[in-house]
Amino acid sequence: MKAYIKAAPKPGFELVEKAIPKNIADNEVLIKVLSVSLCGTDVHIYNWDNWAKNRIKPPLTIGHEFSGEVVSVGKNVSRVKIGDIVASETHVVCGVCEFCRRGEAHICENTKVIGVDIDGAFAEYIKMPEANLYVDKSGLDHRLLSVLEPLGNAVHTTFHFDVAMKEVVVLGCGPIGLMSVDLLKASGAKKIIAIETNQTRIKLAKELGADVVIDALNEDVVKRVLEETNGGAEVVLEFSGNDHAFNQALEYLKPGGKMAILGVFSKDALIDLNKVVFKGITLYGVTGRKMYQNWQEISTFLETKKLHLEKIVTHYLKFSEMDKAFEIMKNKDCGKVVLTLKEE
Amino acid sequence: MKAYIKAAPKPGFELVEKAIPKNIADNEVLIKVLSVSLCGTDVHIYNWDNWAKNRIKPPLTIGHEFSGEVVSVGKNVSRVKIGDIVASETHVVCGVCEFCRRGEAHICENTKVIGVDIDGAFAEYIKMPEANLYVDKSGLDHRLLSVLEPLGNAVHTTFHFDVAMKEVVVLGCGPIGLMSVDLLKASGAKKIIAIETNQTRIKLAKELGADVVIDALNEDVVKRVLEETNGGAEVVLEFSGNDHAFNQALEYLKPGGKMAILGVFSKDALIDLNKVVFKGITLYGVTGRKMYQNWQEISTFLETKKLHLEKIVTHYLKFSEMDKAFEIMKNKDCGKVVLTLKEE
Amino acid sequence: MKAYIKAAPKPGFELVEKAIPKNIADNEVLIKVLSVSLCGTDVHIYNWDNWAKNRIKPPLTIGHEFSGEVVSVGKNVSRVKIGDIVASETHVVCGVCEFCRRGEAHICENTKVIGVDIDGAFAEYIKMPEANLYVDKSGLDHRLLSVLEPLGNAVHTTFHFDVAMKEVVVLGCGPIGLMSVDLLKASGAKKIIAIETNQTRIKLAKELGADVVIDALNEDVVKRVLEETNGGAEVVLEFSGNDHAFNQALEYLKPGGKMAILGVFSKDALIDLNKVVFKGITLYGVTGRKMYQNWQEISTFLETKKLHLEKIVTHYLKFSEMDKAFEIMKNKDCGKVVLTLKEE
Amino acid sequence: MKAYIKAAPKPGFELVEKAIPKNIADNEVLIKVLSVSLCGTDVHIYNWDNWAKNRIKPPLTIGHEFSGEVVSVGKNVSRVKIGDIVASETHVVCGVCEFCRRGEAHICENTKVIGVDIDGAFAEYIKMPEANLYVDKSGLDHRLLSVLEPLGNAVHTTFHFDVAMKEVVVLGCGPIGLMSVDLLKASGAKKIIAIETNQTRIKLAKELGADVVIDALNEDVVKRVLEETNGGAEVVLEFSGNDHAFNQALEYLKPGGKMAILGVFSKDALIDLNKVVFKGITLYGVTGRKMYQNWQEISTFLETKKLHLEKIVTHYLKFSEMDKAFEIMKNKDCGKVVLTLKEE
Repeated sequence: MKAYIKAAPKPGFELVEKAIPKNIADNEVLIKVLSVSLCGTDVHIYNWDNWAKNRIKPPLTIGHEFSGEVVSVGKNVSRVKIGDIVASETHVVCGVCEFCRRGEAHICENTKVIGVDIDGAFAEYIKMPEANLYVDKSGLDHRLLSVLEPLGNAVHTTFHFDVAMKEVVVLGCGPIGLMSVDLLKASGAKKIIAIETNQTRIKLAKELGADVVIDALNEDVVKRVLEETNGGAEVVLEFSGNDHAFNQALEYLKPGGKMAILGVFSKDALIDLNKVVFKGITLYGVTGRKMYQNWQEISTFLETKKLHLEKIVTHYLKFSEMDKAFEIMKNKDCGKVVLTLKEE
Repeated sequence: MKAYIKAAPKPGFELVEKAIPKNIADNEVLIKVLSVSLCGTDVHIYNWDNWAKNRIKPPLTIGHEFSGEVVSVGKNVSRVKIGDIVASETHVVCGVCEFCRRGEAHICENTKVIGVDIDGAFAEYIKMPEANLYVDKSGLDHRLLSVLEPLGNAVHTTFHFDVAMKEVVVLGCGPIGLMSVDLLKASGAKKIIAIETNQTRIKLAKELGADVVIDALNEDVVKRVLEETNGGAEVVLEFSGNDHAFNQALEYLKPGGKMAILGVFSKDALIDLNKVVFKGITLYGVTGRKMYQNWQEISTFLETKKLHLEKIVTHYLKFSEMDKAFEIMKNKDCGKVVLTLKEE
Repeated sequence: MKAYIKAAPKPGFELVEKAIPKNIADNEVLIKVLSVSLCGTDVHIYNWDNWAKNRIKPPLTIGHEFSGEVVSVGKNVSRVKIGDIVASETHVVCGVCEFCRRGEAHICENTKVIGVDIDGAFAEYIKMPEANLYVDKSGLDHRLLSVLEPLGNAVHTTFHFDVAMKEVVVLGCGPIGLMSVDLLKASGAKKIIAIETNQTRIKLAKELGADVVIDALNEDVVKRVLEETNGGAEVVLEFSGNDHAFNQALEYLKPGGKMAILGVFSKDALIDLNKVVFKGITLYGVTGRKMYQNWQEISTFLETKKLHLEKIVTHYLKFSEMDKAFEIMKNKDCGKVVLTLKEE
Repeated sequence: MKAYIKAAPKPGFELVEKAIPKNIADNEVLIKVLSVSLCGTDVHIYNWDNWAKNRIKPPLTIGHEFSGEVVSVGKNVSRVKIGDIVASETHVVCGVCEFCRRGEAHICENTKVIGVDIDGAFAEYIKMPEANLYVDKSGLDHRLLSVLEPLGNAVHTTFHFDVAMKEVVVLGCGPIGLMSVDLLKASGAKKIIAIETNQTRIKLAKELGADVVIDALNEDVVKRVLEETNGGAEVVLEFSGNDHAFNQALEYLKPGGKMAILGVFSKDALIDLNKVVFKGITLYGVTGRKMYQNWQEISTFLETKKLHLEKIVTHYLKFSEMDKAFEIMKNKDCGKVVLTLKEE
């Protein structure tokens, strides 16, 4: 089969021929990949930055966001059957550690992430544990189905704190931030204030229904949020990973406010912790997706047709156009970029 | 009456004669002060540091921790009567802001703190709103009663997250940290790990029942906490206000762990926020006391005689010995320092 | 002034002349009543049933739901001013009991309800504590403003448990049940299933956007709810006070389901508690409104114009038409019935 | 091997020879049983009452509470090894239903209970899924280890609501109620009030440290609880399954109080639901054990040696003395009854 791999410790991917995964375990499923989508993590690996150098052991098949069709199943598989169209949780967890056993598998101490720790999805076939699979029953286009994994991050981040009837800031409108705007719009937030620097993404946030979109390069962010709210934002959803933006958020958070943080920071941040103390603020770090509660929530949103993933996926390419995809990602004038393997 | 005041914008306090508070409002109470205790905040004001320069407007009567006897009551006062022995919540709140009206008066947007924003308790008499008063029914010695306000901070910090059967770190064993050790001991924590640098306080933490006391100057704190726990501390109670200690806590917190932060930081802290994100950590900033839930909890602890405040108050002085009290506080070889006005 | 009173221990009300309330306390406000609305409680008092006989001490001015204009204020009143248009919390609470002091004033042990325990609102003037008043800033019509107190019950009941993306049953579509349908529609419930017997109310529930309305007289309720849900209702909001309907709810509640109960039962109910046990169900009894969190939530809903109170108020009468109002209430072919004092 | 079975639809058990379980699946473990203990459920099956007639399909090996030693393991078993001494969760769950997948396996819709739905533990050998096993590391006597499953019920019931510093009623002091007293004592409850009718159990509740034990046959229960508490019990833990006792609990629950219900009721109960409504009470039905959070909590309690299971197990018999065991259970003059297979 064809697969993109990190062949050696240097920038770029290689498109190679390799064997279709064999030795499907009793609890595993073999999937023919239909579409894949690109994540910032893939960019780190492509660019071979410090994080990638420390984490990735070449050779490795890359990629973790995908949709596909089940083509064979292990003998103990019962919930999934051949022909099912699926998306997938990308954390392969141990099931036996303390965290897994009490329903906190998203912080499993033995997590293997596909495309990072073990072979991934930018390939014609991938094998996965049955437990990880989300079987689509909504008839969603397989290209949109490939983005459910980051949608799960957006669900985790957006709903960890109560947002109903709240004034909420979405800090950073990359694809997951945009998904969060979409989720908030469907869920009765009082006011959605998006903050972003890229004009394409500012436009997308508006189209998805953000009540206010602040251009962080051209506006006084703190002043504007305070003007637009009743004494500050009640909830901040942090997707930027930017320390300056984080500190601004501590300024415009309302006393008693909450912040869920999904953004990954490229360096240590110099923070005024006294703001957290004196305002009685709560911060929560978001890792992965609650397994599988967040996937059940995704299912509900898809079933009720409340989301607009078709607006968030802005670029559709062929599987062979991987380098072009990374070019598009680089300048950020995009939402989600999807590559399709299926010929239609 | 005699009162310690900050008379002018410079270090030190002055003991002066001033008028007993008049114009007791309908909802207020006049109290004859029996004992007062010293807080780190008082030290800031005494030393006239930057925080004090920005916040305090001399002349001002200093002090906020006290016990006393009610000597007169306004006409609308019903819960408190002349002769009652009382301690007091020190935040005078507005009662009408959004926060007060939904039971979050500890973050009232119009809070006045006695001894900081308005005249305080290092005086023979003080007037307080009835609502602020805690009427002692346990017969506690008035010298110990003067420390209930910081005990309320300890209650707020210790019980914000669930600590029953948990492995808990008390980070910093000043008087409030020591109170937290005492509270944890009474509440079924699985293991209490105290961290401190001062030998007097290390000894006190042990006497109060901490299962492990780590000398942060002479031990590898992170290594030791990881050895003493099942994969890290489940809850950290941060009383140190020290950025280095805070970063260590992010290291030894278990995935899914929680930290309640009462410590005030003297400068911005350089933090690895990715630890918060990837471990799924929750941080909560503690301000004041939940009004008046935390005081009801204090009442329960006193009623059931589960605490050992007499071990935490290490120095008893006369009211006239204020300077000596600050000397004692300076070298930290102490728990709580109490000054008594009542001659017995 | 004119006022409807229960003059003697027998059915009916009398319209009498009585003095405008005097002795406005320092924390009180005198209000000129603009509109009043009728509640089931008023019907009990009008009919002089057993509950009324045990609770009401004639002579008493009746009525608790109203809107009005502030005409004078006590000297300690700061949040409300003359000319303000207001609705009102109807529980006058003590402020000093354990419950009030920890933010649970809705279960204050000294509650006095206007129109039940103390003089009420079916009069040209009423005095209220400032704290109880909701100052309208949304410009809502005073006739609709009179129904905010039951709307507060609907808010308390609807949002006690998490309803976002849930399959929710509204059990009983009297005015408060209808308000709950409206609130759920604004808040991202997955599916709203209303159950009712009266055709007028069934029609109203549909107009307000219930996804399914079950006619309990003509359908197999349990079977239908199970068909319409994914294994049962996740949340039931009980407004019927009917024991048969309650037992049906225990049947169609999903394992792990929740029920908030506002309905008052006319007699003891024969219940299969094992359903609660084996399904892991949670039940919560709703009394009054969380003070004043639920009023802040009302404010948010009004500010964002998400509700349709004008559909729920079905009858507008003059203040003199009280007997006609009770006639309308009797047959239940109505939503809310409002009587207006102001001549326009 | 020897096993007690329900051979036919009539009262009593038969001790028979049957084959040791074969076909140990890849995820299963074969266990040599060391001790078993008796549960009320076993009594129902022994007596062949209506519940048993409807649920049990003879022939079936009886029994679900046991300890044992692992003697062989399936090829996918990793957490458990031969020689491990284990207790066991008795609900065999599907792992694939909605509830299992979101960490609520205690309400799995496909639950099979050993000794009820599938072959049980009153035998020399039993096979179990690895996931169900609790590996003892505390060195607990295998006879005490056999009672961890009901201890898990006690943990689930006792800690569903917050009991720290609360006034708590334990309603019914059978073995699980006694365990609850023990757990509360270790966890900082303010006051433990036990209610029981049997003198042996009253004595045991006192020995375990209940602050007050009320003899429900000879005292006015409601009056006494109100005298012993500050306005009523804050939490009730219901283990009696008695409708009269349940109604009394609604009387003496404090406003805002909580009740967790584990007791199974032999018939529908006539309940005053208005008490739930007007007092703002929360009820929660307890089914099984949270899997496996409650088992982790058990582990903590055993590790810290805070419990006194040796006081709760009052009778030790040989495996051959099953009929004698049921005789002892019948008159209730006992705590837990344990039968041992291992000859020592």
